[in-house]
Amino acid sequence: MQIAVLLYPGFTALDAIGPFDTLGRLPGAETVLVAERPGPVRNESGNLSLVADAALADVTAPDIVVVPGGPDPSGPMAQGPVREWLQQVDRTTTWTTSVCTGSLVLAAAGLLTGRRATSHWLYLDELVSFGTEPTGERVVTDGKYVTAAGVSSGIDMALTLVGRIAGDRAAQSVQLLIEYDPQPPYDAGSPEKAPADLVAEWRNVDLAQMLTTRGE
Amino acid sequence: MQIAVLLYPGFTALDAIGPFDTLGRLPGAETVLVAERPGPVRNESGNLSLVADAALADVTAPDIVVVPGGPDPSGPMAQGPVREWLQQVDRTTTWTTSVCTGSLVLAAAGLLTGRRATSHWLYLDELVSFGTEPTGERVVTDGKYVTAAGVSSGIDMALTLVGRIAGDRAAQSVQLLIEYDPQPPYDAGSPEKAPADLVAEWRNVDLAQMLTTRGE
Repeated sequence: MQIAVLLYPGFTALDAIGPFDTLGRLPGAETVLVAERPGPVRNESGNLSLVADAALADVTAPDIVVVPGGPDPSGPMAQGPVREWLQQVDRTTTWTTSVCTGSLVLAAAGLLTGRRATSHWLYLDELVSFGTEPTGERVVTDGKYVTAAGVSSGIDMALTLVGRIAGDRAAQSVQLLIEYDPQPPYDAGSPEKAPADLVAEWRNVDLAQMLTTRGE
Repeated sequence: MQIAVLLYPGFTALDAIGPFDTLGRLPGAETVLVAERPGPVRNESGNLSLVADAALADVTAPDIVVVPGGPDPSGPMAQGPVREWLQQVDRTTTWTTSVCTGSLVLAAAGLLTGRRATSHWLYLDELVSFGTEPTGERVVTDGKYVTAAGVSSGIDMALTLVGRIAGDRAAQSVQLLIEYDPQPPYDAGSPEKAPADLVAEWRNVDLAQMLTTRGE
């Protein structure tokens, strides 16, 4: 079973690595980081490079595709090699998945039309313009398409998928190995739970502007 | 504020990236991935390379150090440049932290002697030989030393630290942005919660052997 995790300039590292280190523990899995060209790919803030070991052309029939998000996914959403690759490999995948705004990338490729999906809470409404029904759930499965909410939710998505693919015991084994017994010191991880004024503050931020000031 | 995340061959990616993408959102933080030499560093399974942008010699006074773990941390635990660097920078850090078996690396450097700490549940007892008191808690703070349990616990550790450094509201803001509202589909994330026979199975695994069969 081959799992391909897509990288592109501006991706969020945890979006990619959560599923990488969870799905990657599936018995018999081969996990590969893939990008338009092999070599280092910079994250959203420019302070991390993850190496793509394979080019898109080298990965033609992955069983699972994972598309991470980033605060500005317009690059991989545009017409181009990444979109074409997604459309092509999706024809034979068993599961096509995303984390965070990765669902916008799948949607822009036409893969979520008429389906239910989720995304980072700040970007959820953008799914509508692609004919996709947004839901506030943390992990959404519609057919072979599994989308996860913001950043950290990729771990929950991946554990769910391990269970679907290899059974409950395999998933519990992975959960135990990565000691995923979350105990966040605050309860502010969703717009429903966080202080309302904090949520409002973020809704008013110009995300493109935030990206510029945060980038290095 | 400079946050240095240490990389070494055989590290577990999620150990490093959980804190990277959580602590790194501290207002004004500069995060740098550091290794003995700059360039790509392979993970435990050999299927991922993260690029160290800086050499140890380039990072002489980080405010926070994060040491990730891996299934075989004997390399960074041995006498050598990594240990010497940790001992040196620890003199001026505000916080010295670890995830998973990263606490064994800190302990081997003599930094946790006489302190309480945690580690991945399978390695917890190994702390004793370094004069460190193991605890089963997910995040342990003893003075400026903050250690986290296995792999995924680095996110909880980092959020705790964001709260200590920048206050509750800053930590809630980070939690909301990374949408850390965990909803694991199973409740098997610790040896107390997982099925007893699964825990026993893992306790009987030869970890060095597991590493060999899992590596590529």
